[in-house]
Amino acid sequence: MRTAVTDAVTTDAYPLSPRNQVKRRHDRGFYDHATVHRLLDASMLCHVSYVIDGQPYCTPTFFWREGSKLYWHGSSASRMLRNQTGGERVCLTVAHLDSLVLARCGFNHSADYRAVMAFGTAYLVTDAIEKERALVAMVDRFFPERTASLRQSTVQEIKATSVIAMEIEQASAKIRSKGVADDDEDYELPIYAERIPVRTVLGRPEPCPRLLDGVERPASLGAYSEGRLLEDALRDAHFAHYAGG
Amino acid sequence: MRTAVTDAVTTDAYPLSPRNQVKRRHDRGFYDHATVHRLLDASMLCHVSYVIDGQPYCTPTFFWREGSKLYWHGSSASRMLRNQTGGERVCLTVAHLDSLVLARCGFNHSADYRAVMAFGTAYLVTDAIEKERALVAMVDRFFPERTASLRQSTVQEIKATSVIAMEIEQASAKIRSKGVADDDEDYELPIYAERIPVRTVLGRPEPCPRLLDGVERPASLGAYSEGRLLEDALRDAHFAHYAGG
Repeated sequence: MRTAVTDAVTTDAYPLSPRNQVKRRHDRGFYDHATVHRLLDASMLCHVSYVIDGQPYCTPTFFWREGSKLYWHGSSASRMLRNQTGGERVCLTVAHLDSLVLARCGFNHSADYRAVMAFGTAYLVTDAIEKERALVAMVDRFFPERTASLRQSTVQEIKATSVIAMEIEQASAKIRSKGVADDDEDYELPIYAERIPVRTVLGRPEPCPRLLDGVERPASLGAYSEGRLLEDALRDAHFAHYAGG
Repeated sequence: MRTAVTDAVTTDAYPLSPRNQVKRRHDRGFYDHATVHRLLDASMLCHVSYVIDGQPYCTPTFFWREGSKLYWHGSSASRMLRNQTGGERVCLTVAHLDSLVLARCGFNHSADYRAVMAFGTAYLVTDAIEKERALVAMVDRFFPERTASLRQSTVQEIKATSVIAMEIEQASAKIRSKGVADDDEDYELPIYAERIPVRTVLGRPEPCPRLLDGVERPASLGAYSEGRLLEDALRDAHFAHYAGG
């Protein structure tokens, strides 16, 4: 899985440029598709940065990946979407916090994490077929096969939903996973140090209290079970919807 | 706690402007200090957006709040920090994902979440006293009283750490917490709907395998116990360090 930075300029890696090259801690940088995509697919929530009149905005939103394309959506009236329809530059970031790291000096306090920054130009999906497919994926990428069981979308609902897409032009993943890492001489000191794991997990699903009699939870939601890591459920769902792609 | 949008222009709320006003779903917007600060203090991880040569960047990083000021830090060599020292505009965002919401039509699929966007102008902390206090808070705000037990920072370490600060000029919180919310007529349909809670929790702390004999976990880390919500531990720590401020 690990692709060293020096091997990254291969066909299955995102191209390196000053924009996406991990500047510090080169040992934490990855550019291969497998690593970048795996981290993206483990998340539903991203943060999208864009600029309006010189002011940067950072909006949390839901997104999904199809090949090397990222999609997100929102109301056609939203500020973010109104400003991402003219080919604006954006940066879409995903971060997983894996632990808090308490070291023997302040400087070595840290955290284990996995993050991806993806750069590209956003465009409004106006092609009717691409939009229709995206609106299905918006649900089914997270909850495989669910759209077929739902009340169909109305023309008004489709109109009210904008879908934005971005081809990933550059991307980098940055991963720290080493836990406590103190200076050699500090290990001789009588100071407590530890790693505190952090996990994002699913709780017990709460059926809508207004379900009609006899309506049961579909087996296709099996990936979303109490106590499971959210990222595992999301990866399974991506795999099921895109057949591993 | 809830302050209606129309009441938000009070002394204990961030000023409303086109920049921070929640454009859609006004019912989800909050501007009062109590709501905004409570959500900020519940997170260690934020995403900071900034602009370099017209390109937006969205960098995940750790931050903390002191009054209406936000702090974050990094290597003095990092791209983000090198570009935030000249009074650059930034947007710092925190998001908590609370649930996935499966509705009876695609359009009403949603999520419960709590997010804050804070706007301001970043500056490099160069004042020696402010920097010293910030480097203590960087550890003790998360792990109260810990700095006193650590190996002291060296001059070189202090030099290698840049601290960035930003006075919050505008901020907004956006909260959705209603779970499944379908159109009235859709409740009559035989379609399964549910809310899947999502929680970010602490795992069992893992002491460094190289601890010296007799070095015990200090009682001051008691807030970080297995199974606890990360956000509760972080709020307790903020309260302990700033005495509730």
